[in-house]
Amino acid sequence: MAAIKSAASGLVLPRPVTFVTGNAKKLEEVRAILGHSIPFQSLKLDLPELQGEPEDISKEKARLAAIQVKGPVLVEDTCLCFNALKGLPGPYIKWFLQKIGHEGLNNLLMAYDDKSAYALCVFSFAIGPDSEPITFSGKTLGKIVPPRGPNDFGWDPVFQPDGYDQTYAEMSKEEKNKISHRSKSLALVKSHFAEAGYTFQI
Amino acid sequence: MAAIKSAASGLVLPRPVTFVTGNAKKLEEVRAILGHSIPFQSLKLDLPELQGEPEDISKEKARLAAIQVKGPVLVEDTCLCFNALKGLPGPYIKWFLQKIGHEGLNNLLMAYDDKSAYALCVFSFAIGPDSEPITFSGKTLGKIVPPRGPNDFGWDPVFQPDGYDQTYAEMSKEEKNKISHRSKSLALVKSHFAEAGYTFQI
Repeated sequence: MAAIKSAASGLVLPRPVTFVTGNAKKLEEVRAILGHSIPFQSLKLDLPELQGEPEDISKEKARLAAIQVKGPVLVEDTCLCFNALKGLPGPYIKWFLQKIGHEGLNNLLMAYDDKSAYALCVFSFAIGPDSEPITFSGKTLGKIVPPRGPNDFGWDPVFQPDGYDQTYAEMSKEEKNKISHRSKSLALVKSHFAEAGYTFQI
Repeated sequence: MAAIKSAASGLVLPRPVTFVTGNAKKLEEVRAILGHSIPFQSLKLDLPELQGEPEDISKEKARLAAIQVKGPVLVEDTCLCFNALKGLPGPYIKWFLQKIGHEGLNNLLMAYDDKSAYALCVFSFAIGPDSEPITFSGKTLGKIVPPRGPNDFGWDPVFQPDGYDQTYAEMSKEEKNKISHRSKSLALVKSHFAEAGYTFQI
């Protein structure tokens, strides 16, 4: 099913956008931020996780997802990047969190005065299997701190955004969604959809 | 081209084993260790680098390579695993070396007295696109030290094998090949080929 050009506005997409995720918390955040602006459905796909630079990883994932879904897809990747480590652990943060925990993440920076870090969210949107994905990156600056707050969403307890006394984990969902890396990249996704004026055959 | 069963010995493989690498130094080491025991040719393929556990990464790479090559393939992955970091950076060592260098690798362990590490080499061999790859893991124990020796082969200057006063980089090729993670896994590859008694149509 190829996208066709509509005379009036932009592309006509054959179906809602498939947001590829198996993470209920991420889906909830995306729904809270996107609201009803874009028709989408979610799907858990078994996609390979790649090594590389964040934008490249995200684009490749969108390509692979679009081939499987045979339609428009949105994929998301999150990185936690330590400036003293030149952006690492970055895309590998999941493994570091899993293996060494919050204390271990703090320990990685023991040798450095610079505890600054940024949370990076990259969404990629592909119209279909044959189109080049577009990426939308949102970044929130902050620093790595000893864990504070509820421990139910990844590395949120060790990331304190600049200008706030609270970690991501200590903030309310509404507060976090106002400034989070994910909300910033989703705002770009939203603008793109508004400008492109896609219409959906649904 | 599927492998066929030979009445006399083991499987008959339609062609030499393709060793997938773009790294001349690795190829040189493999040739030095394997000698003429296995007919092989080398090929640089553009394969995705995956995240995950070392054996899984290697198996999946062999699967993808066998599909492209349509014949027997051998792939290799190397990890440098810090015990204090529960095996990390592991398969991501390449990125850590590239971004933070030898000093940065030492700094990752600043918070820990335990500087022990192991070098891990995983070879995977797949007979063809439809066969499950077999993995061969070789491990050399040692510790992470400030860099010593020539700087022309990855993280060799910061890895000192147990029982030696020299780093990998300070050792002669012959010495290193006697005890290295790569030689250990290649010895397993060699034994497998000897036991399986493959014959090659070449």
